Amino acid sequence: MTTQELLQRAKGAKSAMALAGTQTKNKALLAMADALERHQEAILAANRLDLDAARGTVSDVMLDRLALSPERISGMAQGVREVAALPDPVGTVLNRVERPNGLVVEKTAAPMGVIAIIYESRPNVTSDAAALALKAGSACVLRGGKEAHRSAAAIVEALQEGLTAAGLPQDALCLVEDTTRQSATELMCANGLVDLLIPRGGAGLIRSCVENATVPIIETGTGICHIYVDKDADLEMALDIVENAKCSRPSVCNAAEVCLVHEAAAPEFLPRLAQRLAQVELRLDPGAARIIAGTPAGDQDFDTEFLDYILAVKLVSGVEEAMEHIAAHSTHHSEAIVTRNPETAQAFLRGVDSAAVYHNASTRFTDGGEFGLGCEMGISTQKLHARGPMGLMELCTLRYVIRGQGQIR
Amino acid sequence: MTTQELLQRAKGAKSAMALAGTQTKNKALLAMADALERHQEAILAANRLDLDAARGTVSDVMLDRLALSPERISGMAQGVREVAALPDPVGTVLNRVERPNGLVVEKTAAPMGVIAIIYESRPNVTSDAAALALKAGSACVLRGGKEAHRSAAAIVEALQEGLTAAGLPQDALCLVEDTTRQSATELMCANGLVDLLIPRGGAGLIRSCVENATVPIIETGTGICHIYVDKDADLEMALDIVENAKCSRPSVCNAAEVCLVHEAAAPEFLPRLAQRLAQVELRLDPGAARIIAGTPAGDQDFDTEFLDYILAVKLVSGVEEAMEHIAAHSTHHSEAIVTRNPETAQAFLRGVDSAAVYHNASTRFTDGGEFGLGCEMGISTQKLHARGPMGLMELCTLRYVIRGQGQIR
Repeated sequence: MTTQELLQRAKGAKSAMALAGTQTKNKALLAMADALERHQEAILAANRLDLDAARGTVSDVMLDRLALSPERISGMAQGVREVAALPDPVGTVLNRVERPNGLVVEKTAAPMGVIAIIYESRPNVTSDAAALALKAGSACVLRGGKEAHRSAAAIVEALQEGLTAAGLPQDALCLVEDTTRQSATELMCANGLVDLLIPRGGAGLIRSCVENATVPIIETGTGICHIYVDKDADLEMALDIVENAKCSRPSVCNAAEVCLVHEAAAPEFLPRLAQRLAQVELRLDPGAARIIAGTPAGDQDFDTEFLDYILAVKLVSGVEEAMEHIAAHSTHHSEAIVTRNPETAQAFLRGVDSAAVYHNASTRFTDGGEFGLGCEMGISTQKLHARGPMGLMELCTLRYVIRGQGQIR
Repeated sequence: MTTQELLQRAKGAKSAMALAGTQTKNKALLAMADALERHQEAILAANRLDLDAARGTVSDVMLDRLALSPERISGMAQGVREVAALPDPVGTVLNRVERPNGLVVEKTAAPMGVIAIIYESRPNVTSDAAALALKAGSACVLRGGKEAHRSAAAIVEALQEGLTAAGLPQDALCLVEDTTRQSATELMCANGLVDLLIPRGGAGLIRSCVENATVPIIETGTGICHIYVDKDADLEMALDIVENAKCSRPSVCNAAEVCLVHEAAAPEFLPRLAQRLAQVELRLDPGAARIIAGTPAGDQDFDTEFLDYILAVKLVSGVEEAMEHIAAHSTHHSEAIVTRNPETAQAFLRGVDSAAVYHNASTRFTDGGEFGLGCEMGISTQKLHARGPMGLMELCTLRYVIRGQGQIR
C-alpha cells in the first residue's frame, strides 16, 4: 500500500476512534496486550530476521535496542496495560464558564485526529506509541526504522487483532510499509491527513522534521542538560546529584552533559568531583583545568549531547553567568541548581527558560512517570502545545463546546 | 536596521520582559496608552501620508481599515488599558503535585520569549498585538503591511516611549522596517530568534506561513462556518441565528458561510429564510433550488469564505450527513446546530471536530471577549497549542519547576 493510501485509511478511521468510549478503548488495549503475548513466537521470528539482516551493519548498541526477547515482549504488553489503566483524557472539561447572556462555554480535551510517529529501529516504541495515541482517541500512523521493519510489522499485526476484537477499525493503527526517506517526507507534508507528527529519534531526524515539515510537529528529545553547583551548595548533595545525572543512564536525554561550578566552590568541589566520577571523562575549561586534571574542553564540548560518560566542566562567577551560559548553550530540556541559598535558587528557577528547572534534584527526573503523568510519548523541547514530558493529555487538542437557548450577538 | 539585527535586539530584550513583574508591565501598558493619545497628532499625520499613497491603489474597504481618527486612536489606547487590567498569566501554577519521593513538581505558565506577528494594513493591530505580547511577558516583533507602515512606525514610537518610561527595554517592541516579502520570509525562518510566529491576515498569508515557516506558528483566522438546521429545530430561533451569524458582520471569520437544512424542515424553513435574508444572495444546491429561488451553487460555493452577504444552502438527510459535509468542507473554526432534540444535539457536539461547536447559538460568539478570556490575539484554527480564541494564557508556554532536597533517581 502506498503511504498516501494508508494515510487516507487512517483518516477514515479517526472518527470511529474519536467517538469510541473509554471502555471500548480499554478493552482494545487489553486485547492488544494479550495479542502481543499470544503472538510472541511470530514476533520473535520476525525479530530474528531483522537481527540477522542488521548484524555487521549497525553498532552493538543498536543491535541491543533492536533485539526482542520473551521478557521484552512481556514488558511491552505490560506497558500497553498500563496505558489502559490511565484516565481517559477525551472529553475532560478543562474550564467551564457561564456567561452573563446564559451561554455555557466549556473548554474540553478532544482527540487530535491522526497522530503520526516517525521513530528509529526500536521495536518496543511500536506498541508504546500506538497505545498512547489510541487511548488519546486518535488514529495512529507509525513509521519505524528499516532495520526493525519485520519486527514492527509483526507487532502491528498483533495489535490490530486486539483493536478489531474490541470492534474498533483496523485502520486506526497503520504501519508505513515504505521505510525509505520518501515516506518520512510524505508524512511531513501530509497536510489535511496528519494532524500531528511526532519525530522520536536522534538530532538529525528532529532537525529534518523542523526544516521540512508543513504539518504540525512536536520536537522531542535532544537534551544538553546543565547542573550549576553554587557557592552555597551542599557539596555532598551536589556530588550525588551530578553523579546521578551523569552516570545513572548516560544515553538518555535527561542525563547531564555540563557541570557549571561557582569559582568559589571549585577548589573544594572539583577534586571531589574528579574522584567521584572516576569513570567519566571530564572536559575542562581553562579555569577548571587549573584545579584538576582532565581533557581540555574543545570548541564543541559545551554544545554537544555526549550521551556517554563524558562531562564538560566550566567555572562561572555566579548564578548570573551560569544562566547566561545556559541561555546560550542549552537545548532547553532540563537544568538544575544545587544551592542552600533560597534567593539564588529562586533567581535560577525564575530565570532559566527550559522545559524543566530543578532546585536540589537530579535532571534525571524529567520523565512522564516521575512527574505523575503516567506513560509518556517523549519529552517535548519546544514551546508550543506541550513542553516537557508528553502524557495522554498532551496528545489531545481542545474544543470549545457552547450550549445556548437561541443566543445571538 | 536589517530584520536580523532587529530580531537580535528583540532576543536581547526577552529576558528583561520575562522577569518583569506584573506591576511593571501594567505601568508600561498604561504609559503606552497615554503616549498613544499624547502623540495623536503625529500618528494622524503619518496616517495621512499612508492614506495619500494608498488612495487609488487599494479598495475602499482597505482604505477604511487603514484610516485612523482621534476616536480610533482613543479606542486603541482603551484596548491597551484593557490588557493592563487583565490578570497576568506569567507564573500561574497550572498544576502542582507532590511526589512520593518528596519532589514538588509545579507546571507553570511562562513567557514564550519573542513573539512575531505578521499582519496586514490595519494600524490598530499594532497596539493590540503589542499590548498582548508584552503583557504575556514576551518581546514583540511586528511586521505590518506596507500601506500602513508610516502609521505603524508612529504608533510603535509612541508605544516604545511608554515602555521605556516604565523601565522596560525599548527593544522589547520592534517594528520590522522592511515591508517586502523578504522580511516575512526571514521571520518565518528565524529559528532560534523567533519563538512563536502568528500570521494575522488573509488565507494567502496563512498558507504561505504554513508552507514556508520553520519556526513554530499558530494559524489564525479562516472561517467557513456552518449552521445545521435540524428537523427538530425551533424554526424561529433558527432564522434568528442564521440571520445573526450571516448578517451581523459578514466580513469576520466567525460569520456563517453555509446553512445545512434537514430535508424535512426545508419546505417550511427555506421560504422563511429567503424572506428573512432578503439582502443576502443565496447559493442553492439542487435540493434547495427545488423549493426556493436563488443562484445555483457552483463547484466552489461550499468551500469559500465569502466574507460577504452570500450564503450557500444545502439540504441534508440528517445530522450524520450534516457532520460528513462539515468534516469535508469546514475550516474547523465554528459550527452550530439548531435543534430541540437533545440527542441530536449531543451527536453534533461530540462528532464535529472544530474549534467551537454550538448548540442553539450563533457562531458569532467565537471571540475572546465573548468567551470570557478578555482581549484576544486572534482565533486559532489549528489543533496544536491553542484552538479557538487566543488570550494571554495562549501566548504563554509552560515550564516545570521542581523543588527537591537532594533527590536522585
